[in-house]
Amino acid sequence: MHSYVHRRAVVTGLLASAAATLVFKTALAQGNPLPSWRDGKARQSILDFVASVTREGSPGFVPVPQRVATFDNDGTLWCEHPMYVQLAFALDQVKAMAPEHPEWKKKQPFKAVLDNDMRALAATGERGLVELIMATHADMSTADFERVVTDWLSKARHPRFKRPYTECVYQPMIELMGYLRANGFRTYIVSGGGIEFMRPWTERVYGIPPAQVVGSSIKTKFMLRRDIPILLRLPQVNFVDDGPGKPVGINAHIGQRPIAAFGNSDGDLQMLQWATKGAATPCLALIVHHTDGEREYAYDRQAHFGKLDKALDAAAINNWTVVSMKDDWAKIFPFE
Amino acid sequence: MHSYVHRRAVVTGLLASAAATLVFKTALAQGNPLPSWRDGKARQSILDFVASVTREGSPGFVPVPQRVATFDNDGTLWCEHPMYVQLAFALDQVKAMAPEHPEWKKKQPFKAVLDNDMRALAATGERGLVELIMATHADMSTADFERVVTDWLSKARHPRFKRPYTECVYQPMIELMGYLRANGFRTYIVSGGGIEFMRPWTERVYGIPPAQVVGSSIKTKFMLRRDIPILLRLPQVNFVDDGPGKPVGINAHIGQRPIAAFGNSDGDLQMLQWATKGAATPCLALIVHHTDGEREYAYDRQAHFGKLDKALDAAAINNWTVVSMKDDWAKIFPFE
Repeated sequence: MHSYVHRRAVVTGLLASAAATLVFKTALAQGNPLPSWRDGKARQSILDFVASVTREGSPGFVPVPQRVATFDNDGTLWCEHPMYVQLAFALDQVKAMAPEHPEWKKKQPFKAVLDNDMRALAATGERGLVELIMATHADMSTADFERVVTDWLSKARHPRFKRPYTECVYQPMIELMGYLRANGFRTYIVSGGGIEFMRPWTERVYGIPPAQVVGSSIKTKFMLRRDIPILLRLPQVNFVDDGPGKPVGINAHIGQRPIAAFGNSDGDLQMLQWATKGAATPCLALIVHHTDGEREYAYDRQAHFGKLDKALDAAAINNWTVVSMKDDWAKIFPFE
Repeated sequence: MHSYVHRRAVVTGLLASAAATLVFKTALAQGNPLPSWRDGKARQSILDFVASVTREGSPGFVPVPQRVATFDNDGTLWCEHPMYVQLAFALDQVKAMAPEHPEWKKKQPFKAVLDNDMRALAATGERGLVELIMATHADMSTADFERVVTDWLSKARHPRFKRPYTECVYQPMIELMGYLRANGFRTYIVSGGGIEFMRPWTERVYGIPPAQVVGSSIKTKFMLRRDIPILLRLPQVNFVDDGPGKPVGINAHIGQRPIAAFGNSDGDLQMLQWATKGAATPCLALIVHHTDGEREYAYDRQAHFGKLDKALDAAAINNWTVVSMKDDWAKIFPFE
């Protein structure tokens, strides 16, 4: 009997130890799923929302296939100041391509870029911007564009933080996406940025695979080049995934309404409305408010990039969650 | 020792029994994963392809995230004769809507539909068809359209098989999709048909959720109606997901090249090329050839719906798999 009792004690001990480990891990996983978020209304609204949609049998329960969450990218997941990353890419590409285009020295908007004259560039307006995008994003295959983007991102650095742009991402939002996925959500990016500009790196950086990236696009054309099929990128706008375009893009790609949406600017207003207004289930709309000029940037109603004006008013009226980066985030970037 | 030996024998017996059960289940699962497919080259090409991409450490191994398979719908997953199901829907809708449109009695292509004059309808050509689609598919919200489609499908019957159209689906292809998913593939529909016409039922019928349906579309517009957001369907073509449009649609929605593609007509040619030509991994292109006039329909190079001409030639040149429905499929419909 001694041996039996001993073995039983050992087994019980092992089980107890395993159980303790499990409890500990569960506490870690569930007790503080958002370590970079400070206690407060914003963090609590996320926890309450997730608790309500995942509690089986409760009136707010939402089955897993309907747990869709959409995230804006620029200013919501990564830094959009001093300018959109994709604009920095376009400017660098113009400089890199300039030797093959001597005519650009005298032609706007290219002259402004080569002269580093941002005021002259701004004066060319939206038309100038579209010209820049087409000159740097089209007339190559989708595979070639992916290589160009990947190569540029490996070398380019944020002018203030001196880091690759893909490191200038918001740690609290990465935790939030992971927390939602751990609770059965599918997470999507729904960005005004170019869909093909994001897909090469979103899985590595955010855990979001290519099929879950929605964005703006130019047209592409299928063709055989030496009997090998390619998609040629054409200098024509296909879709602008911004403002009222975001619900359109969401419907086209996902075919379901999200129950949670995350943005930071007026370009996200309609996405936040689409996810929440008239919803039959609990839902969450959250706005990242850039209030931290010291650790990041402080801007809203007057900003050139990421203007937050109407959506801030709508947040107050609709009781949406507004995150103050300064107050609600203990940590902003992973490298801090 | 006796007790020890006895217990050991019991344990060994239990393990042997568990192992036998496992072998049996594995045999069931792996030995005949495609019960409605007859032994032959077509079935074997599928089994060989799946074996090669799933064998870890082998040169042909493909990681799970890259296992993307795309399926045409009309004529590949469900019956497209005597006419495309969506055309039958449009004709029925014209008749249902006619009382509100007295002018249709004298106006083509509507008059032809109301007169059941298919020859006169055909004479209105592609322009007539587009007019029919716009009159029956637009000027309502996406939510309303979903209701109309769901309601119609619950009542409409295939004229020959006297069954709901969603039962006139190919059992061997349903088994094939399940087999691929069991082997780590994501399965997508990539159809010339309307994306919103398919999404209400593809999950129930094929196990394919809305986000994995790619198709043709009309434009939509976001708006608030009595403060509730809707997407209004506009009478303007947005995207034609057919022929050279299929690789474009695949890239837009999936952002990855499929390694397996399944079609039945010339509208699938470019998708089959995109999945296979110049591929770095093992790949599979398969064409369903409608050769069974008795159990289904027999048609190819001369067909009005689902013409298979160039893609049949390409199959011979490229060594793609061609399925003869008559010879390769023991069962065609689930209801047989």
